[in-house]
Amino acid sequence: MKVAGRVMRPIRTLPGQAAVEVIDQRWLPFELRLVRLDGVEPVFDAIRQMVVRGAPLIGATAAYGMAMQAARDASDGALHVAAERLQSARPTAVNLAWAVQRVLSRVLARPAVERAVAAWSEADALAEEDVACNAAIGRHGVPLLNAIAARKDGPVNVLTHCNAGWLATVDWGTATAPIYQAHAAGLPLHVWVDETRPRNQGASLTAWELGQAGVPHTLVADNAGGHLMQQGRVDIVIVGCDRVAANGDTCNKIGTYLKALAALDNGVPFYVAMPWSTFDGALAEGVKGIPIEARSGTELTHINGRNAAGQVVEVQLAPDGTPAANPAFDVTPARLVTGFITERGLFAPGNLQP
Amino acid sequence: MKVAGRVMRPIRTLPGQAAVEVIDQRWLPFELRLVRLDGVEPVFDAIRQMVVRGAPLIGATAAYGMAMQAARDASDGALHVAAERLQSARPTAVNLAWAVQRVLSRVLARPAVERAVAAWSEADALAEEDVACNAAIGRHGVPLLNAIAARKDGPVNVLTHCNAGWLATVDWGTATAPIYQAHAAGLPLHVWVDETRPRNQGASLTAWELGQAGVPHTLVADNAGGHLMQQGRVDIVIVGCDRVAANGDTCNKIGTYLKALAALDNGVPFYVAMPWSTFDGALAEGVKGIPIEARSGTELTHINGRNAAGQVVEVQLAPDGTPAANPAFDVTPARLVTGFITERGLFAPGNLQP
Repeated sequence: MKVAGRVMRPIRTLPGQAAVEVIDQRWLPFELRLVRLDGVEPVFDAIRQMVVRGAPLIGATAAYGMAMQAARDASDGALHVAAERLQSARPTAVNLAWAVQRVLSRVLARPAVERAVAAWSEADALAEEDVACNAAIGRHGVPLLNAIAARKDGPVNVLTHCNAGWLATVDWGTATAPIYQAHAAGLPLHVWVDETRPRNQGASLTAWELGQAGVPHTLVADNAGGHLMQQGRVDIVIVGCDRVAANGDTCNKIGTYLKALAALDNGVPFYVAMPWSTFDGALAEGVKGIPIEARSGTELTHINGRNAAGQVVEVQLAPDGTPAANPAFDVTPARLVTGFITERGLFAPGNLQP
Repeated sequence: MKVAGRVMRPIRTLPGQAAVEVIDQRWLPFELRLVRLDGVEPVFDAIRQMVVRGAPLIGATAAYGMAMQAARDASDGALHVAAERLQSARPTAVNLAWAVQRVLSRVLARPAVERAVAAWSEADALAEEDVACNAAIGRHGVPLLNAIAARKDGPVNVLTHCNAGWLATVDWGTATAPIYQAHAAGLPLHVWVDETRPRNQGASLTAWELGQAGVPHTLVADNAGGHLMQQGRVDIVIVGCDRVAANGDTCNKIGTYLKALAALDNGVPFYVAMPWSTFDGALAEGVKGIPIEARSGTELTHINGRNAAGQVVEVQLAPDGTPAANPAFDVTPARLVTGFITERGLFAPGNLQP
């Protein structure tokens, strides 16, 4: 996608180097900072500290982390240690383990001398497949938007939560792919952007993406979605996901479950954009089965923003010493999901097959 | 209630003056600033700009505003103009109009020479009745908490949204009255405090109140409530309200509806603490009938907090020029409300009678 007219991705390889350059997403929307990652530990830190975030992008970044390890020491032992380390960076998204294991298994099958090249090539393949996958999700999602447009006047109002945009993937985004494609095709669209507390990925990333792409959008508090649906101002909800269980239970950013409840209560279709790499067929159900990352309470009690002098600073929001709990994800039961938009087409929750 | 051991109310009269002193709640939790209000316009501004907020406190403050008018010019015309002005300060809460009309009608019934004294005395009466009303809400709510405590181990986990605490009333609070009384009686309690975006009344006011009172509590993002209920970590939800229609539809801070949906989905009782002054028996239903205040989008794109130097400053959260919508309230359909805790006892949604 484009930033100020220039084509960008949130991750890119650096020719001739065992390193990648990523956008440090913690500084958006105020500063476009690029960071070079050149080893397992820098990649681990970048994932853990959310320099990069979003399940597909985490997976791609970790795949390159494995390739960096293979470039230094491609022994079985070193690769296994790196894989374990990278997978532990964040517990919820299944893409992370999927991507790491994919590179690991391909590389372990090769003789040591070929491993460095094979690992890098596998990471490249994984990244390009993510782009193609998201483009396909877009193609399969566009007809849903067209169908709504055909039966109403005015723009199609989409509500999305968190950032499942191109910043969360290698390109296109998952939930945003149908939006960007429909917008490019001239369909009148308007996106309600959930702020997405506590890390504000909606306000800082999705609003920024949509603004750069010229897609009409309005920022709302996470609290507002139910009211908007009750007032008939939302035609469809499309969100991303971090892990989907075999039964269709969907783990995504905290607060997604509340929007799904409101969608059902108001007859608004609720779709999950899901690359198959996010599907965890080994997990029978998600409400009890998916580990939910507990992040620091300071993400809630403090926030970064730009002050009057133009500096990005942290301010405190709650009284000194206030205890805070910060579960980063929740699980939306499959019964609340209308369908999954995947690279292979649309699927009902009951029809997911590995 | 007490602040640093000293008994305080969010509003108090000043002996011998046609004026009141209020806590400027915009500076909490960081600074306890007191402001003197001495006329209809200062009272109007204080309500509009949310120096004072919370339906009962708005009503009491406006009643004193009417008394200030009567002290200056108690003619029918001047009183009517003042009433109209004060009622227009915020559109959603019914207490505001109720309080203004109550003082107006009592005063208009008197000869001009008695009006100033009568108006002040009526405002005083209204304020003291609010205190007694909330204390009674507390008494009727405590048995609900005791009943939960009787059937489980560990503390009773209450979730509340926004601030329906003593800062939102003349004293005790509405939703917090049962909490403060049960806590004082030694019942083990823990309160999940919704941050309550965009104005963060939970993080800045409820967390502060509970901290001052020594009630165990944990701040959470508005997004987290569904997950907490799904995990069995919420025993009861108690919220305040700004207007309740005859059928029990409940208007309260934006986001309340989402919590009510989650409560129903997880079998968690959902109670509304309601002074009868908040009941609008003239309104048949609330979802379509209650006007929802649209506040400035800058409440969403910018936020106040304390910086590293200890100053309360505003920072920007969203990209420059991001459009934002900020509906301040939503309506929870009566079918999602377990019951109303009122000064006259508990009521089911179907049994509300003016």
